[in-house]
Amino acid sequence: MTLASPLDQTRAVASIDPILGLTRADMDRVNALILSMAGSNVELIPEIAEHLISSGGKRLRPILTLASALAFGYRGDDHVKLAASVEFLHTATLLHDDVVDESDLRRGRKTARTIWGNQASVLVGDYLLGQAFKMMVEVGSMRALAILSNASAVIAEGEVWQLSAAKRITTTEADYMAVIGAKTAALFAAAAEVGPVIAGAGPAFEAAMRDYGLHLGLAFQLVDDVLDYGGSAGDLGKNVGDDFREGKITLPVILAHAAGTPAERDFWRCAMEEGRNDDAALAEARELMARHGALEATKARAREHGRHASEALSLLPAGPYRDALDAVVAFSIDRIR
Amino acid sequence: MTLASPLDQTRAVASIDPILGLTRADMDRVNALILSMAGSNVELIPEIAEHLISSGGKRLRPILTLASALAFGYRGDDHVKLAASVEFLHTATLLHDDVVDESDLRRGRKTARTIWGNQASVLVGDYLLGQAFKMMVEVGSMRALAILSNASAVIAEGEVWQLSAAKRITTTEADYMAVIGAKTAALFAAAAEVGPVIAGAGPAFEAAMRDYGLHLGLAFQLVDDVLDYGGSAGDLGKNVGDDFREGKITLPVILAHAAGTPAERDFWRCAMEEGRNDDAALAEARELMARHGALEATKARAREHGRHASEALSLLPAGPYRDALDAVVAFSIDRIR
Repeated sequence: MTLASPLDQTRAVASIDPILGLTRADMDRVNALILSMAGSNVELIPEIAEHLISSGGKRLRPILTLASALAFGYRGDDHVKLAASVEFLHTATLLHDDVVDESDLRRGRKTARTIWGNQASVLVGDYLLGQAFKMMVEVGSMRALAILSNASAVIAEGEVWQLSAAKRITTTEADYMAVIGAKTAALFAAAAEVGPVIAGAGPAFEAAMRDYGLHLGLAFQLVDDVLDYGGSAGDLGKNVGDDFREGKITLPVILAHAAGTPAERDFWRCAMEEGRNDDAALAEARELMARHGALEATKARAREHGRHASEALSLLPAGPYRDALDAVVAFSIDRIR
Repeated sequence: MTLASPLDQTRAVASIDPILGLTRADMDRVNALILSMAGSNVELIPEIAEHLISSGGKRLRPILTLASALAFGYRGDDHVKLAASVEFLHTATLLHDDVVDESDLRRGRKTARTIWGNQASVLVGDYLLGQAFKMMVEVGSMRALAILSNASAVIAEGEVWQLSAAKRITTTEADYMAVIGAKTAALFAAAAEVGPVIAGAGPAFEAAMRDYGLHLGLAFQLVDDVLDYGGSAGDLGKNVGDDFREGKITLPVILAHAAGTPAERDFWRCAMEEGRNDDAALAEARELMARHGALEATKARAREHGRHASEALSLLPAGPYRDALDAVVAFSIDRIR
C-alpha cells in the first residue's frame, strides 16, 4: 500500500529534497545563528553545542519552521530566530534525554554525557533552553512564545510520564500515543504553527499547520518504532533492536503484547521489564510481532497520521511549499513501504 | 561594625518581618498559583513539587518581586504570576543543582533526587522551567520576559562555568564573584527588576531595583559562605563545614589560599581538590582563615555589597516598601554581625 496524497490523484514526491532546496539559504542563516547563540566564554558550552550540531541530524524541526513561514509569504528575519529556538529546544531535550536514559550512543556517535559527563549535559541543556527563550523574546511575538513555551512544558511532562508509568508492559495504545504526542509531536506541531503566526496568516492556517506538524510527528515516531524491529532497510543511525534492548515500550510491542497468549505476555514482561533481551529474545519478539501483525498494524497507524498531515495541507495555497511539505510526509512514510 | 543605612542616620531594622507583612496577602496567592501550576495528571510532578515547596525556604525571591511591584503602586495580578515564575526558575535550578552536585540533603531534608532519583529531578526541573515561561507569557510583558529569560541563561552559564573551571583552588576572587553573580545574584536582580517593569515605573527605577537585587544577592551569598565556616551562630539549615566537605571553593577559601605560604597552599589544594577534608582538616582550615583574616575580609565584602543595595534604594520614594526592602539587606548582613 502506498500513500495517496489528498492533494492530487498522483502520488506525492517522497523526498525531503524539495523542502531542503526551498529553505537552504535560510538554513545557512539558522546554522550561523545557532553557532553564535551556542557561543560562550565558558569553553565547555560551545564544545558540547558543536558536538550536537555536527551530529548529522536532518534538522527537520527548524526546516519546518522556515518552510511554514515562507509558505505564507513571510519576508523577514524572525523565522530564522524561531527556527534556531526550535532546534535549541530539541537539542536541550536530547541532552537531558540521554542523561535520563543513560544512553551511550546517538546516531552511532558517543553522546555528550559519555564524553563530558551527566553534569555538563544537564547544565548545557539548561543553557540552551535559556538561549532559546532569549531568541524567542527577540522575535517579540507573544503568540509564538506561548506556543513554544507550552510545547516545552508538554515535552517535559511527557518525559516524566514516560519515566513513571510508560515503562510498564501494560501501557495501553492510548497511553503510548499520548506520550509520543507530548515527547515528539508537540514540538513538530509548534515548529510548524509558529510559521503562519509570524507571517500573520490567521487562525485557520495556524490550526492547519499545527495539525500538519502534529500528525507528521506522530507518523514519524511510529515509523521509527517499526524500523527498530527491521520493518524496512531504512537507515536510522541505530541498529535493529536498539529499542528492544533498552526496554523501550513502543507501539509494536504494545500491540503484540495485547494480542498475545498468557505465555507470550509473560515473555514480553520478562523482556521489557526484567531485561531478558538478548539476540534470541529479539528474534522471538520479531516472530511474535509477525504472528500478530503488530508491525503491519503500526504501519497502518503511521499511514493514517500521514494522511491527516497531508489533509491539513489541503487548505494551503497550491505551490512549491505545499508540495514540499507534503513530500516530507511521503518521505517519512516511505521508509516503511 | 554595623551597617549604617544610607537612608537615614539610624540603623535600618534588621528583620524580614516588615516585607513579610507587606506581601503576606499576595504571597498566599503566589502559593496557590504555584500549587496549581505544579499540578499535573502525571503524579510524580505534584509529588516532587510539593516536596520542594514545603521545604521551608524563605521564598525571598518571589517576595522581592511582589514588594518591588507594590513599591511602585502596582495594582494588578501580574506580580503574582511573575513571583511564581521566579520561584519556579529557582526551584528548577535547585533540582538540577542537586543532581549535578550529587547532594543528598538540602536544609536538613532529603533532596528530591535521593527520594525520586536523578532522572525525575532533571525532568521535573524541565517541566517547572516550561511552566515558568508559560506564566511569564500570560503576563504578556515582553520586557519582563527578556529580563527573566536572560537570567535563566545566565544562571545556567554560571553553573557550567563553575563545573569546568571554578572547582580549582586557583580560582581568583574576580572569577568567584562572576560565578556567584551568575548563579545567585542574577535571579535576585531579575526578581527585583520585573516589579518596576510591570508597574510602569520607568528605566531609572528598573535600574535601581536591578542594582538592589544584584548586590543583595551577592551579599547574601557571601554571608552564607562565612556562616559555613562558623562565622556566626546563624541557622543556615546546614552544618558548619558543609561547603568544605563538598570541596566548594568559596571566597574565604580563595582569600586564605591567596594569602597562604606554599605549605598552606598545598593544604588547600589537598583539601579542596583531593578531598582531604575530615574534621581535623576543617579545624586546620578555620585556623588558617583566622590567621589571614579571610572570614573578616569576606564579611567586609558582604557589607560593601549590602551598602550598594541600600544605596540603590535611596532613589525610591520614602515609605514602608523602601524601609522593608532595606530591612532585608540589614537582616542578611546581620547574620554575620
